[in-house]
Amino acid sequence: MIKVTLIGKGNVSKHLQRAFLATKEVMLFQVLGSRKKELDTALKNKAIQNKINASDICIIAVSDHAIKSVSQSFTQFNTFLVHTSGSVSINDLPKSLNTGVFYPLQTFSKDRLVAFKTIPICIEAKEKKDTELLHKLARTISDEVHEISSEKRKALHLAAVLVNNFSNHLYQIGHDLCEDNQVPFELLKPLIKETALKMESLSPEEAQTGPAKRNDQNTINAHLKQLKDTNHKEIYRLLTLSIQNAYGKKL
Amino acid sequence: MIKVTLIGKGNVSKHLQRAFLATKEVMLFQVLGSRKKELDTALKNKAIQNKINASDICIIAVSDHAIKSVSQSFTQFNTFLVHTSGSVSINDLPKSLNTGVFYPLQTFSKDRLVAFKTIPICIEAKEKKDTELLHKLARTISDEVHEISSEKRKALHLAAVLVNNFSNHLYQIGHDLCEDNQVPFELLKPLIKETALKMESLSPEEAQTGPAKRNDQNTINAHLKQLKDTNHKEIYRLLTLSIQNAYGKKL
Repeated sequence: MIKVTLIGKGNVSKHLQRAFLATKEVMLFQVLGSRKKELDTALKNKAIQNKINASDICIIAVSDHAIKSVSQSFTQFNTFLVHTSGSVSINDLPKSLNTGVFYPLQTFSKDRLVAFKTIPICIEAKEKKDTELLHKLARTISDEVHEISSEKRKALHLAAVLVNNFSNHLYQIGHDLCEDNQVPFELLKPLIKETALKMESLSPEEAQTGPAKRNDQNTINAHLKQLKDTNHKEIYRLLTLSIQNAYGKKL
Repeated sequence: MIKVTLIGKGNVSKHLQRAFLATKEVMLFQVLGSRKKELDTALKNKAIQNKINASDICIIAVSDHAIKSVSQSFTQFNTFLVHTSGSVSINDLPKSLNTGVFYPLQTFSKDRLVAFKTIPICIEAKEKKDTELLHKLARTISDEVHEISSEKRKALHLAAVLVNNFSNHLYQIGHDLCEDNQVPFELLKPLIKETALKMESLSPEEAQTGPAKRNDQNTINAHLKQLKDTNHKEIYRLLTLSIQNAYGKKL
């Protein structure tokens, strides 16, 4: 049985709570709020202190920028402290503690359940026994556990922003174009889905299609004319150029 | 029974062939190559001519830039001629014929089967009876048939390029980042899939997450530093700016 204290009450924390509560191998001791005042008060409470000391692991699931300061509040305890961020180095956690990273590589939204079993969990720890504990904990909720260094995790997080945040924003621009032209956005959904599902059997290079790849300058010019927002025009121009560069190089 | 002649042997044609052959309501009369020499020779053949004249519809499934010239070869026949393109106007087809558009809104790759039933087919025709025939034909292979004008189809096609071609290129950049840093691209696949599947239950606006949305300038600067390609840096900067504009406006 792995005893866990969770700090933070945001999306990642809520999804982890749900996953941990669904497995018999984890005992979720407590979930603490991460706001300074709330946390300071909590950490003075004897019962909470006892639970922290009895925890095998304390997981800070808070915004990237808050990790450093929240983690400082735990230097008074003798605990194994990890964060859940893709972009924050393990070295941002207090040097005086055993520390690690438990990064579930997925996008979490409030109102959407995710199947944890297939989510890659990227783990990292300073000590071998801690790495083993993270392995054990991650395996209770996922079949995809990977040891990834802070350096590699940084690259992975950047890639995640590109494929997730930026793709989603392209959906948004597509959505707004549909709205402006009174076409239902629904019509794009099968395409959005297939674009992603293609990655199951093709590489992005094999899957690439469209006017940029086939150097169809007429269509490209017509599209640029259609876009009203200067920033969107520039995004279209640069992504087209980048596709042309990628394929030009390989021809 | 709807009798069809298909012109072109590329991806769209192959996927249409497979779909038409799987339904009892369509008789696929013939598939003609679209290259000038091949087509000219074919169109002089009496048997092929007879089949064209007996077809209820001739579908030109060729590259956008070839539609105009290929369609000119059919002015000698009395046939209903349609193309399958998202970006070409119905008016690019010969005025002397009954013409239309049969645009399946999906991305077709050579080695990947698609389930036609859920693919939106956007139809358009000059004559009411032709629109009805297109409806009938489209419904034999799909449950999603929509009458869309050339003007609206143009917007839809631009949106399709954004959500499909450009998202796929972001996967490519993510893929290359993984390769450069010796991280398996596999780790990103569940995220890519969930990003798309989110659109089933959330709007792009609701689904947006990430450093740009939460104005996390530290992470944004770190990411910009990590990107080596000047063009990729600029794509990151502009998409970030565009997300900030979209959310700034709504705050």
